[in-house]
Amino acid sequence: MRFLVGVDIGGTNIVVGTVAEDGSAVFGVRADATRPEEGAPTVIRRIAQLVEESVTEAGRVAHVPRDRIVGVGIGSPGPLDRERGVVLLTPNLGWRNLPLRQLVSDAVGLPATLDNDANCAIYGVWWVGAARGSRYLVGITVGTGIGGGIVIEGQLYHGAADAAGEIGHATIDSTGRRCKCGNYGCLEAYASGPAIAARAIEGMEAGAETRLASYVGGDVSRITAQTVYEAAHDADAYALEVVRETAKFLGAGVANLINILNPDTFVIAGGVTLAGDHLFVPLRAEVNRRAFRPAVERCRIVPGELPGTAGVFGAAATFKTQTWGRV
Amino acid sequence: MRFLVGVDIGGTNIVVGTVAEDGSAVFGVRADATRPEEGAPTVIRRIAQLVEESVTEAGRVAHVPRDRIVGVGIGSPGPLDRERGVVLLTPNLGWRNLPLRQLVSDAVGLPATLDNDANCAIYGVWWVGAARGSRYLVGITVGTGIGGGIVIEGQLYHGAADAAGEIGHATIDSTGRRCKCGNYGCLEAYASGPAIAARAIEGMEAGAETRLASYVGGDVSRITAQTVYEAAHDADAYALEVVRETAKFLGAGVANLINILNPDTFVIAGGVTLAGDHLFVPLRAEVNRRAFRPAVERCRIVPGELPGTAGVFGAAATFKTQTWGRV
Repeated sequence: MRFLVGVDIGGTNIVVGTVAEDGSAVFGVRADATRPEEGAPTVIRRIAQLVEESVTEAGRVAHVPRDRIVGVGIGSPGPLDRERGVVLLTPNLGWRNLPLRQLVSDAVGLPATLDNDANCAIYGVWWVGAARGSRYLVGITVGTGIGGGIVIEGQLYHGAADAAGEIGHATIDSTGRRCKCGNYGCLEAYASGPAIAARAIEGMEAGAETRLASYVGGDVSRITAQTVYEAAHDADAYALEVVRETAKFLGAGVANLINILNPDTFVIAGGVTLAGDHLFVPLRAEVNRRAFRPAVERCRIVPGELPGTAGVFGAAATFKTQTWGRV
Repeated sequence: MRFLVGVDIGGTNIVVGTVAEDGSAVFGVRADATRPEEGAPTVIRRIAQLVEESVTEAGRVAHVPRDRIVGVGIGSPGPLDRERGVVLLTPNLGWRNLPLRQLVSDAVGLPATLDNDANCAIYGVWWVGAARGSRYLVGITVGTGIGGGIVIEGQLYHGAADAAGEIGHATIDSTGRRCKCGNYGCLEAYASGPAIAARAIEGMEAGAETRLASYVGGDVSRITAQTVYEAAHDADAYALEVVRETAKFLGAGVANLINILNPDTFVIAGGVTLAGDHLFVPLRAEVNRRAFRPAVERCRIVPGELPGTAGVFGAAATFKTQTWGRV
């Protein structure tokens, strides 16, 4: 058995793990804050450190020999150029034309590959999670932003410039809310974590009755999407309404994707899955109402499992496909 | 050289042609009104008649021998089940669970295949038209409805239930115009031919100044999308505004598809291409404004050529791929 190291770089955290070649296990899962403000060289040293710790731990707990660790798969925010292994531009991390693949490979002394973070997360769920066995998979990760991944017959679909799956900036209301990207009415402007919090706060400022403020010591500005989910689980009527509205917005986006790509499985991953059935029940209803019947009848909508490690598994899997052609 | 007969069934017309195996020529193009109200058996007899006429004409003008004609590719409105060759439901034609492939095959005495009409139109543009050589192609046909087709590395993408590419019912404004499908804000409710005419008439009823009525003998209810394009070409300011609005709506839909699928080529086919640069110039501007830069930079947006015969070529091409695995 060979092993791959999966590296999942997010705007907030970096997560690393040592993954068995067949996807049966992950050892030595290590996480640290990304702290992009310290600059790319420091972040890359941090990645190398996490890889070293993960490999050491895998050796300790599972007797994984060093010479069985054959490569590092990296998942990074994009856009990026897979062939050259270069991150073109990441507003959240402040990187521009960074040859990340080579830098990480040099720092850890192993071959490396690079792919988009959302692609990796969805690919991980396809490889070892809730979407196993899917032939036509579409997935979205809903967190600080909304990213997406498309897996067709076991291969990530990348499109002409590695930019496929930019689902967060699909228009669901062409005259609607302003998005950070400069446009109006993007899905992300309604249903990302920060957008959920912003909508909740707006309603409170307009006088909505809710116990949301009590979860954050009265400081409304500290309300996050997680606060909303927590209050919804405690049956706060207003928080439940915010979650139901989120389900309607996400439902419009999911229905569009089902109409376009007719997947057999649709994965929703990321922080938003913490809302549980409060989200998924009205979301499925909205999709049923909006999507084309033959397409929706053949599609199951499932939460991504693997909290925290989907991106690690997926990054390891993309190393396999980029290096050996298959997972 | 072998030959295929392509059959393009539309809500209004049926078009048939005899296509050289390599796509180099089409002979004996014949068209007739569909007249679905006469019932499926009559429509199928009409298809068989057109096939006979086309084959006879191909023999007469190009000396195509009968025994070189090896099959019939059928493009039909859907949804449909390719594997069983059955049209599941076509509101416009009134068909339900119709085994069209077998019925046509029996009527003409040749093997037949079945695919979606919009898929065939876009596949035809890929095979012999403006999208030749594209690896990642997305196309829409804008006429009475809005259909779509996706061609990835030379193969039509069908999804899990042959329903992929239902682009007309993608939401561009989740609280917007009511669509015939029962939902609100579908692209088709803004940018299909009938929607363009309806928007033009609405504006006139609200007092817009325009010479549009003079194109239809003063009977505003006879205004069609074609009337609007004609007046736009004659520099009618209001008609130009309606076309520019159409470009904005289509632009939002096209940008979504570019963000999701990152194609190298985007084809816009169907009646709407008659608007020419009045449509394509503002449409490209809207897409540039809305779509993700790395994706839009790698995508050319082109009108479908092959007026009238794209669906015939594409239906012939789908016979090849369904029968022999490649075009």
